[in-house]
Amino acid sequence: MSYRGPAVYERSDPFKELGGDFFVVKTIEMVDGKVRMLDQSRLPLEVKYIDCTDYKMVAEGIKKLCIRGAPAIGIAAAMGVAIGARQIKAMDFDEFYAGLGPVFSTILSTRPTAVNIEWAINRLKQLLVSNKESGIEKLKDLLMDEANDILAEDIEVNKAIGRFGAHIIKDGDTIITHCNAGSLATGGYGTATAPMRTAKEQGKKIQVIADETRPVLQGCRLTAWELMQDGIDVTLITDNAAGALMKKGEIDLAIVGTDRTAANGDVANKIGTYSLAILCKEHDIPFYVAAPTSSIDFSIASGDHIPIEERAPEEVTCIWGHRIAPEGVKVRNLAFDVTPAKYVTGIITEKGVFKPKELYKLKAMM
Amino acid sequence: MSYRGPAVYERSDPFKELGGDFFVVKTIEMVDGKVRMLDQSRLPLEVKYIDCTDYKMVAEGIKKLCIRGAPAIGIAAAMGVAIGARQIKAMDFDEFYAGLGPVFSTILSTRPTAVNIEWAINRLKQLLVSNKESGIEKLKDLLMDEANDILAEDIEVNKAIGRFGAHIIKDGDTIITHCNAGSLATGGYGTATAPMRTAKEQGKKIQVIADETRPVLQGCRLTAWELMQDGIDVTLITDNAAGALMKKGEIDLAIVGTDRTAANGDVANKIGTYSLAILCKEHDIPFYVAAPTSSIDFSIASGDHIPIEERAPEEVTCIWGHRIAPEGVKVRNLAFDVTPAKYVTGIITEKGVFKPKELYKLKAMM
Repeated sequence: MSYRGPAVYERSDPFKELGGDFFVVKTIEMVDGKVRMLDQSRLPLEVKYIDCTDYKMVAEGIKKLCIRGAPAIGIAAAMGVAIGARQIKAMDFDEFYAGLGPVFSTILSTRPTAVNIEWAINRLKQLLVSNKESGIEKLKDLLMDEANDILAEDIEVNKAIGRFGAHIIKDGDTIITHCNAGSLATGGYGTATAPMRTAKEQGKKIQVIADETRPVLQGCRLTAWELMQDGIDVTLITDNAAGALMKKGEIDLAIVGTDRTAANGDVANKIGTYSLAILCKEHDIPFYVAAPTSSIDFSIASGDHIPIEERAPEEVTCIWGHRIAPEGVKVRNLAFDVTPAKYVTGIITEKGVFKPKELYKLKAMM
Repeated sequence: MSYRGPAVYERSDPFKELGGDFFVVKTIEMVDGKVRMLDQSRLPLEVKYIDCTDYKMVAEGIKKLCIRGAPAIGIAAAMGVAIGARQIKAMDFDEFYAGLGPVFSTILSTRPTAVNIEWAINRLKQLLVSNKESGIEKLKDLLMDEANDILAEDIEVNKAIGRFGAHIIKDGDTIITHCNAGSLATGGYGTATAPMRTAKEQGKKIQVIADETRPVLQGCRLTAWELMQDGIDVTLITDNAAGALMKKGEIDLAIVGTDRTAANGDVANKIGTYSLAILCKEHDIPFYVAAPTSSIDFSIASGDHIPIEERAPEEVTCIWGHRIAPEGVKVRNLAFDVTPAKYVTGIITEKGVFKPKELYKLKAMM
């Protein structure tokens, strides 16, 4: 899983001040025309950054989970296109746009479930088409600016999710989350973690239970790590322990992220989210999904149309490269599942909290 | 986790013929006055046996999960007492029985949830009290014979569980199981795996889905491994994937083992069993528990009285000694949970299949 290719840096300052008391990890940024991303596949053992000098390196980084999380890979996709565009030599718009074809397709093919890659690329395509008379060099600058804007907007969106979502958190609540929909999954502040961060800023005492989230252990390696950095009280459990803790009355609500939410409120998210939602229903625990509008796909009617990525068996049979399973064992490794809208209490967006049935109201606001 | 102390052997013949086409792994046996156990903490990477020369080594082997599984640790407990008794020098019964005090208490304190240790020790205590006039040397022989009988009976019990349980498996079924309630958890043939083995012997085509079972990965390391040895079609998944596969209609029934089942049919078993039972209910999938009567504790009215072991955080934060979680993270590591009887379709015992509500009928048969 370790990323080979681009230069690797250790940085003594992986955190940036975000306002208030919050320092969030720098997940991704453009530095000197390169896409610098934290290699999350090595966390929490190593805090290392990789610099991607071309779009293929960015695509590889997305595929190998150096960067992951729906919003973060949307940002990475935009930055990948922007640096890919820089390398295109073209005489006119049509030639330039044609040259971007392989850039778009390579980046789009990295991961099928999250809609944010598609969303980011569509946004850049619209920008290009709207400015086709501007000249190639100007277009390259526009793409670069737009990619940086997508990053900056993402943090603002997450803070808005935090403001709306903090209302559902009461003083003293214990919140369970699955996978990582935190700073590391976004430009900063996180989606599912945003209401937690805002609630804490508001002085509420909260506890977080982080499912470890097999197979890639994003809850263990990433969520627990980043919440500890922020001084949020976090406890790590195996995915198997969620039900037992709910039965003991130790969990008040669940907040998770999403890779793609359909128009009817069906939620695709990391494998195990569906099970968690069922456990919440069985224990009368509210189940919320933090979803920036960029992750809501109004073009599909239900979750049945969301492609579910199946990943390599090695994610299940090995951990950190160490084999844990018998040689030759058959494996099913579904990376995501779809939680039907009926299990979802509310969808927390940057424009408010919506019941799944009321997502049409959000669409009308866009 | 690797066991240090007793001699370690690699054996080229870890399997014994059990009749039919079945070769089952030799989990535990008495050899030359020593308790030889397969070190399951190293499976499937290494097939190594350890020879325990005194009862403390047996207790250590139970505690460190070299041997695990409710029936298997019941057998180990009996063998531990038998070799512990050999070392006692006593003039009369009372002195002998008093000398066994620390042996009983050391072995009883190893693991609290499974009732089989208590069951085995109570059986030996009754044997001693019934034969108190027999003389010390004779009592030592009786204990040794009884321990070997417990092993031999266990395999017969499991084959009976297989005969009763095979009726619930239809040709073409896919069965999900959690943790390991297989040959390795017993004297041989397994409890939850017994109906699968018998169904296969009957010519039914079956598939098994093995939950990997974090944190100790018994499903991945043990169940997948032993079913592969027996040529049973097994597919490994993360615990998180069970719900998604059920939603796809890919699972027909669940069979799990139990560490202790209460008189009302509440079932204590490996952490995650409760979640699996809820998922089964939500998808209308029958949820069966294979329980030798030795694991049914009629002395307790409900699962509320079953002690639940919490184990060291390192089982969650490390795998094979490799750290996966942030240093200093808080952890909850519940080793078991209790599935209320209302989620249990039937309890498969060596005397028949009972609804939880009808366990009183089983009690009447004993």
